[in-house]
Amino acid sequence: MKFAIEKGILLENLTNVIKGVSTKNVIPVLNGIRFELNNNGLTLLASDSELTVETFIDKALISDISCNGVAIISSKYILDIIRKMPSEIVNFEMVDNLNIKIFSESNVYNLNCLDPNDYPTIKLSVQKDPIIIKANILKEIINQTSFAISNQELRPILTGLNLKITGDLLECIATDSYRLAKKNLKLEMPIVSDVNIVVPGKNVIELEKILVDDEDVMINIFNNRVLFQYKNIKFQSNLLSGTYPNTANLIPTEFDILVQIGKNDFGGAVDRAALLTQGKDKNIIKMKIEHKQMVINSTASEIGRTEETLLVDTDEKSNIDISFSAKYMLEALKTIDGDDVLILLNDDVKPIIVKSLTDESLIQLILPIKTY
Amino acid sequence: MKFAIEKGILLENLTNVIKGVSTKNVIPVLNGIRFELNNNGLTLLASDSELTVETFIDKALISDISCNGVAIISSKYILDIIRKMPSEIVNFEMVDNLNIKIFSESNVYNLNCLDPNDYPTIKLSVQKDPIIIKANILKEIINQTSFAISNQELRPILTGLNLKITGDLLECIATDSYRLAKKNLKLEMPIVSDVNIVVPGKNVIELEKILVDDEDVMINIFNNRVLFQYKNIKFQSNLLSGTYPNTANLIPTEFDILVQIGKNDFGGAVDRAALLTQGKDKNIIKMKIEHKQMVINSTASEIGRTEETLLVDTDEKSNIDISFSAKYMLEALKTIDGDDVLILLNDDVKPIIVKSLTDESLIQLILPIKTY
Repeated sequence: MKFAIEKGILLENLTNVIKGVSTKNVIPVLNGIRFELNNNGLTLLASDSELTVETFIDKALISDISCNGVAIISSKYILDIIRKMPSEIVNFEMVDNLNIKIFSESNVYNLNCLDPNDYPTIKLSVQKDPIIIKANILKEIINQTSFAISNQELRPILTGLNLKITGDLLECIATDSYRLAKKNLKLEMPIVSDVNIVVPGKNVIELEKILVDDEDVMINIFNNRVLFQYKNIKFQSNLLSGTYPNTANLIPTEFDILVQIGKNDFGGAVDRAALLTQGKDKNIIKMKIEHKQMVINSTASEIGRTEETLLVDTDEKSNIDISFSAKYMLEALKTIDGDDVLILLNDDVKPIIVKSLTDESLIQLILPIKTY
Repeated sequence: MKFAIEKGILLENLTNVIKGVSTKNVIPVLNGIRFELNNNGLTLLASDSELTVETFIDKALISDISCNGVAIISSKYILDIIRKMPSEIVNFEMVDNLNIKIFSESNVYNLNCLDPNDYPTIKLSVQKDPIIIKANILKEIINQTSFAISNQELRPILTGLNLKITGDLLECIATDSYRLAKKNLKLEMPIVSDVNIVVPGKNVIELEKILVDDEDVMINIFNNRVLFQYKNIKFQSNLLSGTYPNTANLIPTEFDILVQIGKNDFGGAVDRAALLTQGKDKNIIKMKIEHKQMVINSTASEIGRTEETLLVDTDEKSNIDISFSAKYMLEALKTIDGDDVLILLNDDVKPIIVKSLTDESLIQLILPIKTY
């Protein structure tokens, strides 16, 4: 293997591929990035057992090709080495199966490589009729829901993002059982057989970082894996096994109290009240609505207390005293577009719904916390 | 105590004063910031036993003053509380000695205070004839030397910055016994009695952050403390006791080898060689000079090796093979102005000197490390 490539192009591709390397990897060879040069170009691949990322660089973007081949280069230093190279063009040349030279005119790195024969074969096949979503839309869906994914291994299924498709309706749901985020999207083309998969949260978060424009993402769903194809990138994740809980009946459809409020005013008041609850789990604050006024308050006996009054647009008879996690409320508010939000309530033990005034496709649900 | 003040003004002063609060404080009242409102204005003060910072805000910058007084407000939340206030003007009103209200039109914080009677009296007297240095110059001196201060408590005296003044010559020295930074400055006015003090490194680093323009800093030196007066700020540090080692004879004055080299080329090569030594203590790299060429290299048996060749301006007969800490070299290079640097050497066990081509006032010394 011998070739030369522009630093910027290689860096961009390496930055994507390296997401496939797990820091907790126990199989040594998987700490490496697989470089394969063939007649079409250069393929970079990294994988742990749960996530595989592959990118392909066309040979038109590569120069001085003189020999095809495969090398497994340790991922630990490779990004820094390329980033710090003193030239715009970086040269690669294999010495043998286990040694590679990366060099410019003035400097050379001789790196030990991992044995390419140890690298597992990873299937990255795609389908004839993938589901297609624009990258910027998929990115938005992930951003609006993924923060609510559970990080508790107690219920493994909740550590993933649930994607359900029936006909042309995609539902994307995340919940950690204290809050829930749900986004609906109408697909351009209906699908034939229903889909109901759960993608591990950590992989979803890596996928989101890769999506940068409005090009198509082709989603290929298999039995135990999903492959997102986007530009020159294949991003394949395992699926979580098990049945995602049916959350449809958790979301109330009728409400006694409807409150319209400025998102920044409300978010600011929640944030200010949360200040005094720092360090406490989920920083619980209180909200009271009465006579078209909302009072947000919190108390920390050792520090003091704070209270903020906001005028809200609601019924004169709306009356509630409810507690919730400020952190959850702030994360929910961040996903909603527009100057105002709607807060929908029933009583102090029923879910709080936060949504946009105009966009019905996104629902943020937060369970209240009973305080005494 | 009751007053109102612009958020920006209060924040700027609090940000400076809060540097006087130690996170390791064991005396509860010293976790607070002392607010004192009197007929002249508002004085903010914070102190641990080793550092005291006081700022004064003239009453012209304060409004709605209706009652003088003292309050000790916990430093833990105060910056965030002020920063997040929803109005440009912040109101303070003491309820009693142990309770204060901080409020705007829509919100109020009721904070528990510490007992002002517990707060120690701290002397911040100044001298008639302080030493005067422009803030930007003092800031530069600190930046050019403080990185070499030791963080090892084994030799406590080396954890401080040594300031020596004889006549109109200020010498500023830092060393951790593996490297040394020395900066000379000619004062505008000679002083009568010699000065030789050691200021704790952590306080020097806080002082540097406060200095933002070219106004005068008045340096008042006492037996066991030094007080820097700058604009509306008094910054008082304890002094380390003990005798700072005499480092004058450590710095060679004659050299067998003089090398002139581009700072960025050399720094880049050192940085690239250091990459493969990451995680190792002081990342040692090798430098070889021969036939007007410099070769920087490093080896990490498990990863690989790297080598970079640079053309340098030196004698044909300059010839050396020496090892040193890449980290120390990079930190030394950062302090030197200009495109090129001079590297002065004798042999592979004698100190390496790095300095500017034109500025004789700054010397960076690095001890080589003998490798086998």
